Amino acid sequence: MAAATATAAELEAQGFRPLDEASLVAYIRATPALAASLGGRVDALEVKEVGDGNLNFVYIVLSEAGSVVVKQALPYIRCVGDSWPMTRERAYFEASALQEHGRLCPDHVPEVYHFDRAMSLIGMRYIKPPHIILRKGLIAGVQYPLLAEHMAEYMARTLFFTSLLYNSTTDHKKRVSQYCGNVELCRLTEQVVFSDPYMVSKFNHWTSPFLDKDAEAVREDDGLKLEIAELKSMFIERAQALIHGDLHTGSIMVTTDSTQVIDPEFAFYGPMGYDIGAFLGNLILAYFAQDGHADQANDRKDYKEWILKTIEESWNLFQQKFVGLWNKHKDGNGEAYLPAIYNNPELLSVAQKKYMTSLFHDSLGFGSAKMIRRIVGIAHVEDFDSIEDASKRASCERRALDCAKAILKGRRQFESVEQVIAHIRSITH
Amino acid sequence: MAAATATAAELEAQGFRPLDEASLVAYIRATPALAASLGGRVDALEVKEVGDGNLNFVYIVLSEAGSVVVKQALPYIRCVGDSWPMTRERAYFEASALQEHGRLCPDHVPEVYHFDRAMSLIGMRYIKPPHIILRKGLIAGVQYPLLAEHMAEYMARTLFFTSLLYNSTTDHKKRVSQYCGNVELCRLTEQVVFSDPYMVSKFNHWTSPFLDKDAEAVREDDGLKLEIAELKSMFIERAQALIHGDLHTGSIMVTTDSTQVIDPEFAFYGPMGYDIGAFLGNLILAYFAQDGHADQANDRKDYKEWILKTIEESWNLFQQKFVGLWNKHKDGNGEAYLPAIYNNPELLSVAQKKYMTSLFHDSLGFGSAKMIRRIVGIAHVEDFDSIEDASKRASCERRALDCAKAILKGRRQFESVEQVIAHIRSITH
Ligand SMILES: Nc1ncnc2c1ncn2[C@@H]1O[C@H](COP(=O)(O)OP(=O)(O)O)[C@@H](O)[C@H]1O
Ligand SMILES: Nc1ncnc2c1ncn2[C@@H]1O[C@H](COP(=O)(O)OP(=O)(O)O)[C@@H](O)[C@H]1O
Ligand SMILES: [Mg+2]
Ligand SMILES: [Mg+2]
Ligand SMILES: [Mg+2]
Ligand SMILES: [Mg+2]
Ligand SMILES: [Mg+2]
Repeated sequence: MAAATATAAELEAQGFRPLDEASLVAYIRATPALAASLGGRVDALEVKEVGDGNLNFVYIVLSEAGSVVVKQALPYIRCVGDSWPMTRERAYFEASALQEHGRLCPDHVPEVYHFDRAMSLIGMRYIKPPHIILRKGLIAGVQYPLLAEHMAEYMARTLFFTSLLYNSTTDHKKRVSQYCGNVELCRLTEQVVFSDPYMVSKFNHWTSPFLDKDAEAVREDDGLKLEIAELKSMFIERAQALIHGDLHTGSIMVTTDSTQVIDPEFAFYGPMGYDIGAFLGNLILAYFAQDGHADQANDRKDYKEWILKTIEESWNLFQQKFVGLWNKHKDGNGEAYLPAIYNNPELLSVAQKKYMTSLFHDSLGFGSAKMIRRIVGIAHVEDFDSIEDASKRASCERRALDCAKAILKGRRQFESVEQVIAHIRSITH
Repeated sequence: MAAATATAAELEAQGFRPLDEASLVAYIRATPALAASLGGRVDALEVKEVGDGNLNFVYIVLSEAGSVVVKQALPYIRCVGDSWPMTRERAYFEASALQEHGRLCPDHVPEVYHFDRAMSLIGMRYIKPPHIILRKGLIAGVQYPLLAEHMAEYMARTLFFTSLLYNSTTDHKKRVSQYCGNVELCRLTEQVVFSDPYMVSKFNHWTSPFLDKDAEAVREDDGLKLEIAELKSMFIERAQALIHGDLHTGSIMVTTDSTQVIDPEFAFYGPMGYDIGAFLGNLILAYFAQDGHADQANDRKDYKEWILKTIEESWNLFQQKFVGLWNKHKDGNGEAYLPAIYNNPELLSVAQKKYMTSLFHDSLGFGSAKMIRRIVGIAHVEDFDSIEDASKRASCERRALDCAKAILKGRRQFESVEQVIAHIRSITH
């Protein structure tokens, strides 16, 4: 955790004021870019704070002629309070990543209309109803036929175009350097994903007493600890691409034909597998939660199949699209695989297979780590939390945990996503 | 290659003037820190340019009461000329790394007395005779009984203390960001070590016609190309420690009881194995060159044994010292292996073994790559170049090349440095 929170006077000297509904209206009226997004009709605004109590404050602002979402970072973590200070600069990195990823994948990222660094404030496109947070759709049992295709596209484009496969080393290092500044958010991830679940920590909790032994087993599993050490080092050391950094199903808004990725405040140059794993791992969590949501009206069997199919397609389409981009741009600025060296199609194809296999194993490792931390760490997921019967919830969580542990330790044995899915299916205890 | 060289007028506007013996004397007289290193006696200075024609200009300056070495970077690569521009900022990174590594390992790094960024000029301790460049000692067949111990100490301290095993993520990322600026030198390495040898390039040369087929075989070895791609990506992506970046036997000055490491202008946060490999790989090159230096007076058999022993001890002592530092500082600021997680001695020991095995394989990979490029790439080594008989030279080089190719491809099969040495010995064709 960082140094103590700045006082109100210090914050004011930095040009920062925490807004509320009323002061936000005044701010909008004084800010042409925001006023424009509201069609200039800033007289009667409807403002609603909808931040789901996580890190930041999020306001939906509606006028008769337009709409905008305003997100403000306060100098601490909202859900913990000012006992856990957190740099407001995360808003700068979120805005930067939204702009960069938006440029690369405009169909799946909201536009940034306005950024005020001193105020740690982003104005962006309102992702309108019927869009809902994907996690809520998964809990409700809604199928999204284009989800795999869209997320594969988003991940392939944002990761490929910010990697050394596409950019010169010079450009890459410049951007790596810039995002080194988002280190406080990286440290938060280090702590809550790669450390706390594997040790005694006041932040950890789980469905007690049912999972007491399971949580203890995680803290005493030497094999797991050896694997997590490797992933933790890779997370900090390896600047492979500009990753979203928090790509769980709560950072994705969906309808049956649209998919929008929000909230990249953890963005930095890190391992690609961390994003892919976050997405796939959270789908696996959703899968294991289904038994807790099944009822007489809906046994959720079909829905579980749809989730598995979505996992399979997400990886396979991602791989296809990513390699497609690689082939398309193989004569571009990227210096990692020079055409003069990888000068025959078979060789390039073998090199790509090797690259993708290694990325697959990274994704499985990071994905499992993200699953584990959601069951025995600080921040849980609504998928499980919404299962009221604690004993039933614990059973679902235990299956997910056992699945994650096995994949984390055995990830290098998996040669295809189909094999992973077979493994997920096999866990029925 | 970078943009065209700046004109003399542009350089002057930047505060830069290339010095020569005469203008250097005036510069010294006007610079208190340099004058002080000469005991204030700047009236009758003896100045000699000794740069061995590589990248920069190096002057030894002697007075009756002191001495200093002055190194100046020009905006191009000296041995190529101004057709190959190269940022003068390399002097800034060299000075920074000399200071940082010097703080961590003062016994084996010359002190920096003065740094002038605008002039790209470093004043540092003169490493006096009888110190000579290690490579020349290896060619002459001189044994250095403390070399392994000293280099193990240098590598263990500089690498451990600049890694995440010792530093907080916050400090680490700050320094990573700073050294991202040395990207032009990284790109030079990428080109000459990881790219050119594996493709047709006007910069490549070799002992022709003897090695024509061997050079071609490197350019057509798909297995080698798959391995080199992995190493090249690791070189750019993985910010593991502040590495020297050019740690061959020409960057080390020795007597029988002193070892001094110079010339870290390629320094950046990269994989530790790149430094370790550079040192070990260049010792292996020296080993294979010995048959070319053998004569009736000295068959070099004992000397070859001494080189092998030095390779073995260098790795084993490095490993011992590195793990020793890790154990000593395991409760420090480093966040990679928290004591609350790696909370029993056996677990920590297994984690360390895993880390060291992976580092060993990285070192073997990078070391082999450094060997290969010295035989079929742009810059060769005096160890071989000083063998006058081209056919004999080619035989020595071929053995070294075959050794390097096998180690690069099979590096993960080696479990100890003794096994590597057995492999080196086995190459006698
Ligand atoms: N651009 C947007 N359009 C519509 N709703 C949004 C938008 N951005 C955020 N939200 C809503 O606000 C909630 C919190 O936003 P998020 O960016 O995830 O904040 P935090 O960083 O605090 O997690 C989201 O779950 C979503 O419901
Ligand atoms: N501090 C020093 N003391 C004595 N000689 C030095 C010192 N630094 C460099 N030299 C001499 O100058 C030569 C070139 O120096 P180096 O730093 O390797 O330059 P370059 O970057 O051009 O390779 C070395 O091989 C060595 O002989
Ligand atoms: Mg998350
Ligand atoms: Mg969020
Ligand atoms: Mg967030
Ligand atoms: Mg040198
Ligand atoms: Mg040099």
